[in-house]
Amino acid sequence: MVADWKSRAKAKRDAILNSIPTEWRLSNIPSPEEQKDVTGPYIQQFLTKPEIEITETDAVGIAEKVAAGSWTAVDVTKAFCHRAALAHQLVNCLHEVFFDAAIASAKALDEFYAQHKKTIGPLHGVPVSLKDQFHVKGVETTMGYVGWIGTFEGIREDPRRGKFESEMVRELRNLGAVLYCKTSVPHTLMSGETVNNIIGYTWNPKNRYLCSGGSSGGEGALISLRGSPGGYGTDIGGSIRIPAAFNGLFGIRPTSGRLPYEGMANSMDGQNSVLSVVGPLATSARAVRLLTQTLLSQEPWLHDPLVVDMPWRDAEEQAVREIVKSASSRGQLAFGVLNSDGVVMPQPPIQRAIATVVEALGNAGHKVIEWKPPAHQRLVDIVGKTWIYDGGKDVHDAFALSGEPLSTQIKLSYGDKPIEEYKASQISANNIAKRRFQKEYLDYWNSTAQETGTGRAVDGIIMAVSPYPAARPEKYNYYGYTSVVNGLDYTSVVVPVTTADKSKDRYIDGFTPINDLDKKTFDDYDADLYDGAYASVQIVGRRYTEEKMLAIAEYVGGLIGK
Amino acid sequence: MVADWKSRAKAKRDAILNSIPTEWRLSNIPSPEEQKDVTGPYIQQFLTKPEIEITETDAVGIAEKVAAGSWTAVDVTKAFCHRAALAHQLVNCLHEVFFDAAIASAKALDEFYAQHKKTIGPLHGVPVSLKDQFHVKGVETTMGYVGWIGTFEGIREDPRRGKFESEMVRELRNLGAVLYCKTSVPHTLMSGETVNNIIGYTWNPKNRYLCSGGSSGGEGALISLRGSPGGYGTDIGGSIRIPAAFNGLFGIRPTSGRLPYEGMANSMDGQNSVLSVVGPLATSARAVRLLTQTLLSQEPWLHDPLVVDMPWRDAEEQAVREIVKSASSRGQLAFGVLNSDGVVMPQPPIQRAIATVVEALGNAGHKVIEWKPPAHQRLVDIVGKTWIYDGGKDVHDAFALSGEPLSTQIKLSYGDKPIEEYKASQISANNIAKRRFQKEYLDYWNSTAQETGTGRAVDGIIMAVSPYPAARPEKYNYYGYTSVVNGLDYTSVVVPVTTADKSKDRYIDGFTPINDLDKKTFDDYDADLYDGAYASVQIVGRRYTEEKMLAIAEYVGGLIGK
Repeated sequence: MVADWKSRAKAKRDAILNSIPTEWRLSNIPSPEEQKDVTGPYIQQFLTKPEIEITETDAVGIAEKVAAGSWTAVDVTKAFCHRAALAHQLVNCLHEVFFDAAIASAKALDEFYAQHKKTIGPLHGVPVSLKDQFHVKGVETTMGYVGWIGTFEGIREDPRRGKFESEMVRELRNLGAVLYCKTSVPHTLMSGETVNNIIGYTWNPKNRYLCSGGSSGGEGALISLRGSPGGYGTDIGGSIRIPAAFNGLFGIRPTSGRLPYEGMANSMDGQNSVLSVVGPLATSARAVRLLTQTLLSQEPWLHDPLVVDMPWRDAEEQAVREIVKSASSRGQLAFGVLNSDGVVMPQPPIQRAIATVVEALGNAGHKVIEWKPPAHQRLVDIVGKTWIYDGGKDVHDAFALSGEPLSTQIKLSYGDKPIEEYKASQISANNIAKRRFQKEYLDYWNSTAQETGTGRAVDGIIMAVSPYPAARPEKYNYYGYTSVVNGLDYTSVVVPVTTADKSKDRYIDGFTPINDLDKKTFDDYDADLYDGAYASVQIVGRRYTEEKMLAIAEYVGGLIGK
Repeated sequence: MVADWKSRAKAKRDAILNSIPTEWRLSNIPSPEEQKDVTGPYIQQFLTKPEIEITETDAVGIAEKVAAGSWTAVDVTKAFCHRAALAHQLVNCLHEVFFDAAIASAKALDEFYAQHKKTIGPLHGVPVSLKDQFHVKGVETTMGYVGWIGTFEGIREDPRRGKFESEMVRELRNLGAVLYCKTSVPHTLMSGETVNNIIGYTWNPKNRYLCSGGSSGGEGALISLRGSPGGYGTDIGGSIRIPAAFNGLFGIRPTSGRLPYEGMANSMDGQNSVLSVVGPLATSARAVRLLTQTLLSQEPWLHDPLVVDMPWRDAEEQAVREIVKSASSRGQLAFGVLNSDGVVMPQPPIQRAIATVVEALGNAGHKVIEWKPPAHQRLVDIVGKTWIYDGGKDVHDAFALSGEPLSTQIKLSYGDKPIEEYKASQISANNIAKRRFQKEYLDYWNSTAQETGTGRAVDGIIMAVSPYPAARPEKYNYYGYTSVVNGLDYTSVVVPVTTADKSKDRYIDGFTPINDLDKKTFDDYDADLYDGAYASVQIVGRRYTEEKMLAIAEYVGGLIGK
C-alpha cells in the first residue's frame, strides 16, 4: 500500500514534468541558497524578448493586443506555456499541463479572428490558469490527493472522468480565454501553505525559503512568476487572499453567490454554513476586474443555482470614481483601519504595509478611522468549527483511497483519524451564533457614519491578510484575518503594497505579546529571512460590493504606485 | 403540570379575547352548521358603512386615501381593529391584540400629516397584520407554544422580553404602517393547518368546516375576512402560499435573502439548507407589490446580514408590461403548466383553476407548454429531510417547557419524542443532492427556450399550491407542490382563481390513482363539502424574480377578473 501510493504519486509527478516540452526543461534547478528569488531577471534569462514582453503584460493589455491584431493568440499562449513550464520547474506550482490543447484553442481563436475580424469575447486569446479544483476535459483533477489520480473525484468508474467541465470553464471558453494548466493546492485545500504528496511543496518565487500561500498557492506562485497573467482560485478561509498577498498580486474574494462554483471539486462539499467562493488573482487590479466582470456577462445565475441574479453594476464603480474626483469634504472615501484584531499583531512588514496605505489615503485627502468592531475572535472560532463539522470524515476518506499520509500541516487540523461529527442541532447553534455576529458587525459598520465626516459609513476596512509577509513551512499558525471575512461573507480585495525590509521592519520597543499565539508570531519573526518578501493588505467591503471594492483596489493601488 | 399548561393556555386565550373592547364582542358565535361562510354579508352586518368601505379597500387604495387626506389613519385603524376583532371571534385568528397602541400610532401619524402636509412614508396609515413570529414591543410572541407565554422565545429572564422588535417591524414603522395585531400559527409552524393549544383551531372563513391553511393561517383567515388589508407571513414549505390559496388571496414567497427575516422567532432556527422566508399576503396583487417594494426602499441589506443588496428593479416589471402590450409573435409571455407533479393529482377544483388560467393566457395570445421537469419527488424528499435534521429536538424542547401535548397534525411529523439527529456528513450529502437537483431544474428551464417560440425560456410555471381547495382538519397530507419551490428557492406568487363548484368539479371518469397518497387524495375529495371554497394556483418564477412575478400575478389576476 505504501509503495503503491508513493509510486502512483511519483508517476503523476513525473507525468507533469514530462508534459513539458524538452526544449523548455531546465537542466539545473538552483537551491534556495543559490537563488532565493527566481522572479524577474532570473526567470527572464530563459525567455526571448518577445516572450518577456508578452508575459509581463497584464490580462487587460493582452486582451487589447490580441483584439487589435498586434499579437496572435498562439504566440501569447506559447509564451505563457513556456514561462509556466519554467515556473513549475522552479517552484512546483502545476498539477496539470495541457499546452497542446491550449495551442489548438489559440489556433482556433486566431482563425476565427482572421475570418470574422473580431474577437469571440472579451478574453479572446488571454491565457487563464485554474486552481486544480476546476474540471477541464481531457485532464485530471487530483486536488493533490494521490487517491484521486485516474478518477473523477475519487471514483474511477464515474462517467464524467476526463469529460466533464465545470460551469466556469464553459463560460471562460465562451469568453475566449485559453486554458493551459491547472495549479497546485494543498491536499484538503485547508492550508495557507501548498503541500501534497504529488508535487511536494510549492515555494514562494520571491523567496524560496517561504511558502507561496494556500490553498490557491500554485496560482499565486505561477502568476507571481508571470507564468500566467491571471487565474482563478477559491477561498473558504483565505485561500485566494493569502497567495495573492504572499506573491505581490491583486485578488478578490467575492461574496458567495456572485461567481459560479457549480461543478467544481471541493473538500467537505455540502457544508453550507460558510461557503467556499471562487475568484481571480492577477498582476493588476484592472485584470482582476476584467476576470470578474466578464464572467458576469455570461449570466452565471442561469447556469449555477447558487449564483445571485446580479449583473455587473457600472454605477457602483462609477460612484467610487466620482468620489475620488470630487474635492468637497464629502468627496472623500472613508476607511476603517484595523492594526490588530486583538488576537495576533501582524509582523512588522505587514504593520508597515498597513501604515503605508493609511498614509497614502490620508495624503490624498481621504478619511481613515480606527476600526473597533465586535471581537473578531468570536467569529474566527465559529468559522473554525465549520471546518470540522464532519470530524474530518471527508478528508480522511480521501486520504484512505490511497493510503497516503497527511502532511504535517493538515494533521494539525484533522489529526490521524476522523473524530465525532457535529450533530444538526450543534450546526444550527453555530449558524445562529454566526448570524448574530454578522448582525452586530453590520450595526457597528453602520454606526461609523457618525464618525467619518463623509455622510456615509466607511467604504472599506484596511487590515492584514495574514500576520506574515509569507509564512515559513509549517509555521502558518493563524488564519483569523482572512477567516473572519469568510464568516462575514464580505467582499475583500488584496492590494500588494511593499516588500519586507530588514532595515526598517522591527517590532516597537517593549512590544508585549498578549497571548501564546501572539508570542509565537512575535518569536517567529526573522527580519533577515523575510527580507524582500511581499507585504500586502486586504481592503474589506460589505457583501456584494465587488464593483466598488475593485474600483477601490485600483485606486489605492495607483496611490501607492502599483 | 397538565393542569398548569391548560390553565396557562386558557388564561392567554381569555386575555386575547378580553383585549377586544366590549362593544365589539359578539354575543353569539354561530356554529358552522348555522353559518358556514362568515365572509362578506355575514361579517358586514356588524360594521358601519364607513367601516365596510375602509376595510374593503385594498392597501394601495388605503395608502392613497390617507395620503390624500380623505381618510385619517385613526379612522382606518379603528375600522380594521373592529373587523379584526370580529374575525377573531368567528375563526380564532389572532394571538396578540394591541389596538390601543395601534390607535396611538395612528394618531401620531395623523398629527405628522396635519403638521407637515405629507406622509411619513408610503405605508402611512396602512394597518398591517403580522404572523406571530414577529417581535413587537409591548406584546408577546408565543408562536402557539404555551411554554413561550410570558417569555422571550421560551426564556423568562431574557432582557429582550416585551422590548425587542424584529428588523422588519422597525422598517414597517419607518414606512408609516400601523401595527395592531399578530396572527395565529400552528405550534412548530410546520403544518398546513393552524392549530395550537392556546387559540385552538383557525377556521377557514369562507367554509368553516375547512382549515385556513398554515402556517400563516391566521394571516390568511384575517385578511380573507378583511380584518387586515395585508400582512406578512413566512414560508419554509408553503406557509405563505397555502393560506393565501385557501383564502382567495394574492401572496408571494420571495427568494431567500430578498426580505429581512432578522430578529424573528422561528422553529429550528439555524437550519440553513432550506431557509424560511418572509413575504406578504393581501387582497390584491398590487397590494402584495406595495408590501414588497416599500420594504426594499428601507435597504434591508444594511440591517439584515442575510439580505442581498438588491433594490426594487423597475425594469424587471416594466419588461413584463412591455411584453403584454406588444402584439408581435415574440410579444408573448410563455408558461409551463404542471397539471400533476407525478405524485398527487390535485383535486378537481384545482384542476379547473389551473385550466382556467391556462385558457385565459391562451385567449390573450400567450404561450403555455407542458412542464416536464426532473421528478419533483426527489426534491420533495430532500426538503422533507431538512425539517427533521435535528430529530425534532427543537420542537420537543419547546413543548417540554409547559408539558403541553402536540397536536395530532404535528405528532405525525415529529412523533412523541425526539429521534436521532442528522450528522454533519448526512446534512452535507443532502445539500449536495439538493444543489444537483436545482442545477438539473435550471438546465431544464433553460431548455424550454427551444419550445416557447418567444425566444426566451418560460417566464413562469403554473401549478397547484396544494392538492386541495382547502384541507379538512387532519387531512393535509401532501406538501410537495409548495415544498419543491422552497427547495428550488424560486419566487412564487399565488393567484386566486375561482371557487369550488360541486356541479362542475368532478374527477374524470376512470381516474386511477398512481399511489397510496394519490388514492387518499382522490378518496378524500368531497364535492359537497368543498363547494364554495377558494381554488387558487401558484405561478413560479426563477430565483430573485419578485418584480417580474408580481407583474405577472397582477396581469394574470386581471385576465381572470381578480
